[in-house]
Amino acid sequence: MSRKGSLIIISGFSGAGKGTVVKALTAAHDNYALSISATTRQPREGEEDGREYFFKTTEEFEELIRRDELYEYAQYVSHYYGTPKAYVQEQREAGRDVILEIEVQGALAAKKKNPEALLLFVTPPSAEELKRRLIARGTESMDVICARLARAKEEAKLMDQYDYLIINDDLNACVEEIHQLVMREHLRMEENLDFVSRIRQELKDMQ
Amino acid sequence: MSRKGSLIIISGFSGAGKGTVVKALTAAHDNYALSISATTRQPREGEEDGREYFFKTTEEFEELIRRDELYEYAQYVSHYYGTPKAYVQEQREAGRDVILEIEVQGALAAKKKNPEALLLFVTPPSAEELKRRLIARGTESMDVICARLARAKEEAKLMDQYDYLIINDDLNACVEEIHQLVMREHLRMEENLDFVSRIRQELKDMQ
Repeated sequence: MSRKGSLIIISGFSGAGKGTVVKALTAAHDNYALSISATTRQPREGEEDGREYFFKTTEEFEELIRRDELYEYAQYVSHYYGTPKAYVQEQREAGRDVILEIEVQGALAAKKKNPEALLLFVTPPSAEELKRRLIARGTESMDVICARLARAKEEAKLMDQYDYLIINDDLNACVEEIHQLVMREHLRMEENLDFVSRIRQELKDMQ
Repeated sequence: MSRKGSLIIISGFSGAGKGTVVKALTAAHDNYALSISATTRQPREGEEDGREYFFKTTEEFEELIRRDELYEYAQYVSHYYGTPKAYVQEQREAGRDVILEIEVQGALAAKKKNPEALLLFVTPPSAEELKRRLIARGTESMDVICARLARAKEEAKLMDQYDYLIINDDLNACVEEIHQLVMREHLRMEENLDFVSRIRQELKDMQ
């Protein structure tokens, strides 16, 4: 298939299992590419430019902002993080469905620049289950867990702006649900106008 | 699930295999109901009111038109044919996904009254294959086949107004494709606002 890949933007509460879902999705199907973020922070040991991140100087990053070459960006702890358009576009042109795992504000900003993007919100079946998963990780203090639940409350205010709700109850079911959604995107009429032109011409030629 | 069923409007070239696809779809999955048309023509032997058609007098039918109780209607050979809203709505309220197999003009009219409907256009992979299937039926004269191809040429002019293109190459693949499309529809955020309200409340109650 030489057709263009889709852009899939995935957000969800911290603890919803987004990361696991995305990992399982890309492991199970080879049509996906993960978007790679740009950052001005230093590479950590083992990190490679163009694999974990595109590492940029502050000047380079601000140049990307000026040229509108990022879908979204934000500053955390004096470092920039953002999503370069170029890599996503290259991958889509090559026919790959690109996944952007990103927080809510950034996701909505990216959707504005790409109205055709699939905006997916991943959630556990209930707030109780979200809390349970956060506690089960065993890596975070109760303070951090409370902060995440407070953040989830804020994110929930915007979740209705997403296109699809993905309830992550069973991991495999959830992964296949997302995959089917992406596959179905390719059946959209807008993505098949070449076929339409061809069959119109063929029908004309038959008369 | 007590949620409302979807409305699926299926059109396609005569010879595309719509009828077979719809039959296989409803046989394979029990979430579907077929819309039943109303007509003013006389019942044929074995036909039952409310099964093959809702049989109406001309006065009754014109009353349905006046009251805007049809999604679409047309007149053929001095008889009316149309799609009553009431039956479709009842079935959807009962949670069934209702299939409306209908020609192009009627489909586009029905979509206008139901913007949330899934509008699917079924086509063979090529015009050549369409012709082959029409001939293979062996029941029609070359004149009828030519008339159908001429009609297909007209219908092709409107096919880009559909939401999804379904290429009926392999019957089973085609049926599953449509079924997955319908299932994915239920993941739309608009269909899950109850869930959103619930988890928002739960998250609030946790603070």
